[in-house]
Amino acid sequence: MVDLPFVPFCGLLGFLGFVCVVFVSAWCQYWRGGFALDGGAGTFNWHPVLMVTGLVVLYGAAALVYRLPPAWSGPKQPWKMLHGALFLGAFILAVLGLAAVFRFHNDHGTPNMYSLHSWLGLATVLLFSCQVGAAWDTSSPPQPAFCLPLTSLFLQWVAGFSAFLLPWAPGWLRALYKPVHVFFGSTILMLSMASCVSGINEKLFFSLKNGTMDYKLLPAEAVFANTLGLLILLFGVLVLGALARPSWKRPDADSPDSCQVPAPPGG
Amino acid sequence: MVDLPFVPFCGLLGFLGFVCVVFVSAWCQYWRGGFALDGGAGTFNWHPVLMVTGLVVLYGAAALVYRLPPAWSGPKQPWKMLHGALFLGAFILAVLGLAAVFRFHNDHGTPNMYSLHSWLGLATVLLFSCQVGAAWDTSSPPQPAFCLPLTSLFLQWVAGFSAFLLPWAPGWLRALYKPVHVFFGSTILMLSMASCVSGINEKLFFSLKNGTMDYKLLPAEAVFANTLGLLILLFGVLVLGALARPSWKRPDADSPDSCQVPAPPGG
Repeated sequence: MVDLPFVPFCGLLGFLGFVCVVFVSAWCQYWRGGFALDGGAGTFNWHPVLMVTGLVVLYGAAALVYRLPPAWSGPKQPWKMLHGALFLGAFILAVLGLAAVFRFHNDHGTPNMYSLHSWLGLATVLLFSCQVGAAWDTSSPPQPAFCLPLTSLFLQWVAGFSAFLLPWAPGWLRALYKPVHVFFGSTILMLSMASCVSGINEKLFFSLKNGTMDYKLLPAEAVFANTLGLLILLFGVLVLGALARPSWKRPDADSPDSCQVPAPPGG
Repeated sequence: MVDLPFVPFCGLLGFLGFVCVVFVSAWCQYWRGGFALDGGAGTFNWHPVLMVTGLVVLYGAAALVYRLPPAWSGPKQPWKMLHGALFLGAFILAVLGLAAVFRFHNDHGTPNMYSLHSWLGLATVLLFSCQVGAAWDTSSPPQPAFCLPLTSLFLQWVAGFSAFLLPWAPGWLRALYKPVHVFFGSTILMLSMASCVSGINEKLFFSLKNGTMDYKLLPAEAVFANTLGLLILLFGVLVLGALARPSWKRPDADSPDSCQVPAPPGG
């Protein structure tokens, strides 16, 4: 295989992720009326921006933490904490993104959770709960569909946070759970990509249906948002490719992931 | 990692793939008016059935050929031919599926290739052309967008078919191309899954918009087709998980894949 260095590739990925966030923000700002917190279209617009930023870009960055060369030597604990913190940040953005669309739907009397996009999005956030280690207060949830991913957090807290970040987790538990954690990590990114694509497609069909602005006439907004969809897919595929590349894995990646002693200087 | 045997897992995958084909066929037969070749809705209905059967189920079966225990010993050539033949079958179904939707659009004066779903689908079939080894006659194509994947076949023929199936391909070419081939193989399946989800979502928004049959009221058809979307994702994720599982890989999977001598009996 051609020997490709990780750091410049990572720079390219960072740029691509930045472009995705700029594109989704520009789409909502320029063509969809900008942002607000009043329950109207401006509230909905936070949904695509927060989901793309959280469940795709920040999530992708979190997934690649252990591929950074400085993470290969020395104690693993700080990198685990960075990994967990980035995932928690991604999860918070995703929850806020869900809150935005539920608020918009509720204010307009639109049912939640009926389209395949929404089912898929819910499945993604539910699986994501398995990966994030955080306790959460679920009192007074806004509605059943919304509280589902949040209430699941308490149970999943045991699986994610406890197994890898708490020092007293037994080795056999880590060994058993690690491949599951890694497999679902990639699966969630795939589901996020599919959710984004179906969501952008759905939004364009909803929004572009009059005269010269009909989606099928491919106005500038449609070209722009379709390109956003392809950029999201490109970003996700490159992250998954980087995760799968054997030469970029931490040398002890197959270990059961117990607490490690610092490597000797230069080792 | 828990030692899971491949053969029963493969049986489960086969059943799941069969259920996906039954579901998409039943959806089109029972709720969308069945199948025909007259350019009407019955012609369109071939599109989802052929794309799901070809680009998801048959494609997934083709990808897993080398994971079958009998493929681990003895000459690799027959398994390569089976792998190539299944991919070619998947590709033919996908081309027929594209022909069905283009015929329907053309007969109804609807532009082709405007939605993100269609852009994504085209990207998938274009990438797929890289993987299939077959020469093709591209004379008199129905229209530019349709002939794009077909004309690309001749160039890609060099990359796919020549590198692995022709005996005179140099070892360095196989070594260089194999990881690319494997990476794009998984990527195409991911794009197929995203295409199916966005396509089902789009079709339901188009079809269910009146009175008690509105998509947002979640009639039986919507529940059924949403479930189909989730089943397709489950099938695809399980195939990708099986491909990534180290213990299910052919022991010489990292070799440059040159011509191999048969293993000794019992070896």
